[in-house]
Amino acid sequence: MNWQSYIERYENELLNRIIPFWEEHCVDKEFGGYFTSLDRDGSVYDTEKYMWMQWRIVYMFAKFSVAYGGNDKWMAIAKQGYDFLTSHGKSPEGGYYFALNRQGVPSMAPYNIFSDCFAAMGAAAMFKATGEEKYRTEANSAMRNYIARMDNPKGRWEKGMSGKPRRLSHGQFMMLANLAFEMRECLGSHEYDESAEEAVKAVTSRFWNPDMRILFENINPEGSAFDLDSCEGRMINPGHGLESMWFMLQHAEQKGDKELIVRATDIIKGIMDFGTDKKYGGIFYFMDALHKPHLELQWDMKLWWPHCEAIIALVFAYRLTNEQYFLDKFLEIDDWTWEHFRDPEYPEWYAYLNRRGEVTHSLKGGKWKTFFHLPRMLFMAAKQMKLMK
Amino acid sequence: MNWQSYIERYENELLNRIIPFWEEHCVDKEFGGYFTSLDRDGSVYDTEKYMWMQWRIVYMFAKFSVAYGGNDKWMAIAKQGYDFLTSHGKSPEGGYYFALNRQGVPSMAPYNIFSDCFAAMGAAAMFKATGEEKYRTEANSAMRNYIARMDNPKGRWEKGMSGKPRRLSHGQFMMLANLAFEMRECLGSHEYDESAEEAVKAVTSRFWNPDMRILFENINPEGSAFDLDSCEGRMINPGHGLESMWFMLQHAEQKGDKELIVRATDIIKGIMDFGTDKKYGGIFYFMDALHKPHLELQWDMKLWWPHCEAIIALVFAYRLTNEQYFLDKFLEIDDWTWEHFRDPEYPEWYAYLNRRGEVTHSLKGGKWKTFFHLPRMLFMAAKQMKLMK
Repeated sequence: MNWQSYIERYENELLNRIIPFWEEHCVDKEFGGYFTSLDRDGSVYDTEKYMWMQWRIVYMFAKFSVAYGGNDKWMAIAKQGYDFLTSHGKSPEGGYYFALNRQGVPSMAPYNIFSDCFAAMGAAAMFKATGEEKYRTEANSAMRNYIARMDNPKGRWEKGMSGKPRRLSHGQFMMLANLAFEMRECLGSHEYDESAEEAVKAVTSRFWNPDMRILFENINPEGSAFDLDSCEGRMINPGHGLESMWFMLQHAEQKGDKELIVRATDIIKGIMDFGTDKKYGGIFYFMDALHKPHLELQWDMKLWWPHCEAIIALVFAYRLTNEQYFLDKFLEIDDWTWEHFRDPEYPEWYAYLNRRGEVTHSLKGGKWKTFFHLPRMLFMAAKQMKLMK
Repeated sequence: MNWQSYIERYENELLNRIIPFWEEHCVDKEFGGYFTSLDRDGSVYDTEKYMWMQWRIVYMFAKFSVAYGGNDKWMAIAKQGYDFLTSHGKSPEGGYYFALNRQGVPSMAPYNIFSDCFAAMGAAAMFKATGEEKYRTEANSAMRNYIARMDNPKGRWEKGMSGKPRRLSHGQFMMLANLAFEMRECLGSHEYDESAEEAVKAVTSRFWNPDMRILFENINPEGSAFDLDSCEGRMINPGHGLESMWFMLQHAEQKGDKELIVRATDIIKGIMDFGTDKKYGGIFYFMDALHKPHLELQWDMKLWWPHCEAIIALVFAYRLTNEQYFLDKFLEIDDWTWEHFRDPEYPEWYAYLNRRGEVTHSLKGGKWKTFFHLPRMLFMAAKQMKLMK
């Protein structure tokens, strides 16, 4: 396997087509923060400032600044976003709002735990890039807030009542594992090691059904974990699972935990076998564990991010195991992803395709797509490839 | 135009394929209320009891019982649902929960104004069918609750904050107009006539942009009504608009308001011209007024209900105007709808198709589809056709 041409393709895309797109179009020079609702050519089609999207830009530019040996322009972009978000984005109770309007006035309440999650990641990356104490303080504050909210993530905006079964959510645990890893990497902190251990254990044992070979999104906290009688219980999110598994591989490699590598790579196989569209290629957005009807209308669409997560998981798993299965699947998904999501005319990739792989939305960024999954994938995949050269 | 064969096709479908499917599969004989998550063959794939879906079954069976000269079986189905919903569905503050679990324990908070809306319609239809005072009391109570909540429909579950522009929502006004009409029809009540007048005026003048010939979903309450700079402001829902317009035609005909007929049928033309898919046929789910990217992933899907609403609006408009445009469009949409949504093997129709018109979900009922849009369309369209015979 000659990885050099892959590395060049991935890094060239990142450095010459993805980063420049966001450098040029995302900065709101008038009010601070970022535009993320960017159409095909980078034009702004909405100015709402969604917290997840904003903090992920801070994180990514700070990360790349470190990875590529310091870059003043990138740090300036990250810093102006950080300043905007910390001055306008925090509610009196401490959590981050879900969204601000263009001027920075809160427009959506802090009902979502992942606003804190991405604030923690962004602030931690800023600390790593600068060493300035205020960033560490902010990262720890947001991280502790995330952990404190895990039991009741929506707080007073929770609509669920006593008749709704209490569930554990895979997303919360996988992000806790990822956050703890980032806090170790960026802050050198071991404060969250125990949380990470629990999260890794939960994800790889409780959410994984070894008989069905399926990773579930919602499980019962007590008794039999898997509820096959409800849509919520049967809900599968292959992209989430693949993202989760490369988070597990990061922990496994850092700790030299070979059993965890075996376990996580086996789960990757399960997800790929279940989640791949045998008819049109690519990976489904949502699935039902028993192939019953899915509540989500867009279940069969192909989204950029599950494909990005698949590429990282597969190339990571291949490097750690050297199993042909992962190389074959990587080649298949790399091919499908680059062919269908990449826009040959304008930089940045499409987000949404129908099941056949045809583009349904011209946007390059929006309420749910920002400078994050794609650049992280290009960077992480190239990093794995370099280690195999 | 020979309407007889159309009338037979519509009524045969309603009486021999749609009503029997729900009679057979929707009643929860153990706990009361209804199953609405029904797969292609009527098998239950989830037991959650969503209030909108439940009350619409009460409404529809009570309505048909009156329309077809009294039917004890249908009334028994409606009554057992009514009893279940009124004993379990009401929150201490008076509003209806969004959902109950199978046993009737509240599972989703009463955050949604349309739970009250459909409770009012269901109870009013029960009064019309039985003349029993308790149903009228319940209908008026739910109706007054709907009106009282219109200014702050989500109450304490509202996530929007001061940075979010206040908007008027077309859906609220169109349903107010429809509810007031139902209250007159079922209760003989004129209590809501003034509300209806205001709603009709708002829908046909404030939400309609005559220059763009587009009916908007969200408008500014003051100043320039149309915000073309945000996704929310540009959001168009053709099916909603068509449903709204036949509600307007009901009012217009009842009052003998010829100007309103001209206005509403002109708006129908605008919606059809903008909302029809010129490539694959059928009507889009969501659109952007300027064809910018849509926030909703499933914007280009074809759903059963906008097609049902289109059929009613077009046949109604044709009867009132005798314009060829409406007959041509009716024939086109009737053809596309019956060909793509109808399941030739099992009774009841599919809900969700992709843009090409291919079935994406096997379900016949779910969280958003119940015994409502399709049977109402078959009934209402046949009624209009009979008036033209």
